[in-house]
Amino acid sequence: MAETWFTEKHTPHAGLTLAVGGRLFDQQSPYQRVEVLETLEFGRMLLLDGCVMVTDRDEFVYHEMIVHPALLAHPRPEQVLIVGGGDGGSVREALRHQAVRSVHLVEIDPVVIDTCRRFFPALSGGLDDPRVTVLVKDGFDHLDAHQGAYDVILVDSMDPVGEAAKLFTSPFFEKVKRALAPGGIAVFQSESPFYHADILRQLMESLRERFRHVAPYLAHIPTYPSGLWSFTFASDAVNPRTCPLRDEPALAAGLKYFHPELFRAAFVTPNYLRQVTPR
Amino acid sequence: MAETWFTEKHTPHAGLTLAVGGRLFDQQSPYQRVEVLETLEFGRMLLLDGCVMVTDRDEFVYHEMIVHPALLAHPRPEQVLIVGGGDGGSVREALRHQAVRSVHLVEIDPVVIDTCRRFFPALSGGLDDPRVTVLVKDGFDHLDAHQGAYDVILVDSMDPVGEAAKLFTSPFFEKVKRALAPGGIAVFQSESPFYHADILRQLMESLRERFRHVAPYLAHIPTYPSGLWSFTFASDAVNPRTCPLRDEPALAAGLKYFHPELFRAAFVTPNYLRQVTPR
Repeated sequence: MAETWFTEKHTPHAGLTLAVGGRLFDQQSPYQRVEVLETLEFGRMLLLDGCVMVTDRDEFVYHEMIVHPALLAHPRPEQVLIVGGGDGGSVREALRHQAVRSVHLVEIDPVVIDTCRRFFPALSGGLDDPRVTVLVKDGFDHLDAHQGAYDVILVDSMDPVGEAAKLFTSPFFEKVKRALAPGGIAVFQSESPFYHADILRQLMESLRERFRHVAPYLAHIPTYPSGLWSFTFASDAVNPRTCPLRDEPALAAGLKYFHPELFRAAFVTPNYLRQVTPR
Repeated sequence: MAETWFTEKHTPHAGLTLAVGGRLFDQQSPYQRVEVLETLEFGRMLLLDGCVMVTDRDEFVYHEMIVHPALLAHPRPEQVLIVGGGDGGSVREALRHQAVRSVHLVEIDPVVIDTCRRFFPALSGGLDDPRVTVLVKDGFDHLDAHQGAYDVILVDSMDPVGEAAKLFTSPFFEKVKRALAPGGIAVFQSESPFYHADILRQLMESLRERFRHVAPYLAHIPTYPSGLWSFTFASDAVNPRTCPLRDEPALAAGLKYFHPELFRAAFVTPNYLRQVTPR
């Protein structure tokens, strides 16, 4: 078979290119084009509108890092909401915590959920757990109907284009804040600090109008633009730079990226990012 | 002009691809092919044998991170040796330290030095500083002739192929150790922990036979394989996890990546790397 390569342009002038052994799935959903490719370096890969969402080999970084900081920083994270994240990876990580009693996953696109159930069982396996409720609906509507309901809200969104663009706006941040219970924590995926520092700065400025403690933290994801990714932690009650971390013995085994010592280190960002997002 | 793209394969199945506006230089030296391309995203880019060495836009990460940890951890880093590093970036960073009295740069390939003087003045400008001596020679020979001479030795080498392969061997590590003065520190660039964990593990095992304190630390370099890069700190006298950091006021301004708080955080590595290089 002739070798084929998939290239995602991360900017108009730079991209990641991966050898592909085959295309397993390709469908236009009501919201986006959903594809699954078999890559030779990273295993199976989910694309939404041509952008890499997850690969078998490095999805652990994103999912461990969007979930565990907030769930260890909160003293009793019983009620968890994940907005987006239809692949199921964030649900899987949240379920590692014995403290978690309920996980609501609100994903707008059923094709993403069905595709990941079929092609990424290691990601989506947790969706059938009795603690999990999968809701195929718009995140805005769900937040309005669940004020004060959640201890932790994780915004596991796409890049701020198309349907996901509204997840990077002030009205959405306001709804997230209102849906948190007292003492709650929200975490937002917030793009590459190297390529998208403007997006991260705007997000932080908007969050700081609403939350007392707002701080970005970083993780290294090889298949994401620039290889460096940011998440933003927001809470009125919990300062991630000083808070105690909850003891969760089940976490000690099985994690490939996160460990408690990494919690603090991930919040120590390079000078070029500190200049964009001063404390 | 037709758009052209340069691709470096980081593995047989994955690579970085960059739009190129022109080729400024291309020469086969006695040791390697030396090229300078003008990229649209990262500015000028130096290639050695087709591998990205430096780009205008992200070279600061590599050079700040190979230099400043050791130079702040050493209480009196007066005599500094850089092996490789003919582009001059590491020299530039070392000269920021008022404590440094002498920098020896030992680079085997004069074409690299001349090319960077011509095309990368922001990198090579420090080479004419009165504290700097540029020596075009083999690092092995130089180390043999300078036993006990250096407070800090920085091994700013290429990937372990061709002429640079011998810089990843036990005999070389032994020569580095002997060239250090009492209390000395050596730092080795040690490849991508994501793609090249085997190289990093072998390097650390060999260094641990010779040095009391050996620890990897990480930095994010977008144009390097996987975007994550490792350096390895080695010393009999200085433990980088606990040592005090020297006060160097000149450093506060001008750094784009490194700051003292980042020193400790850079040594906190992900679980997958800790499993490869246990303490």
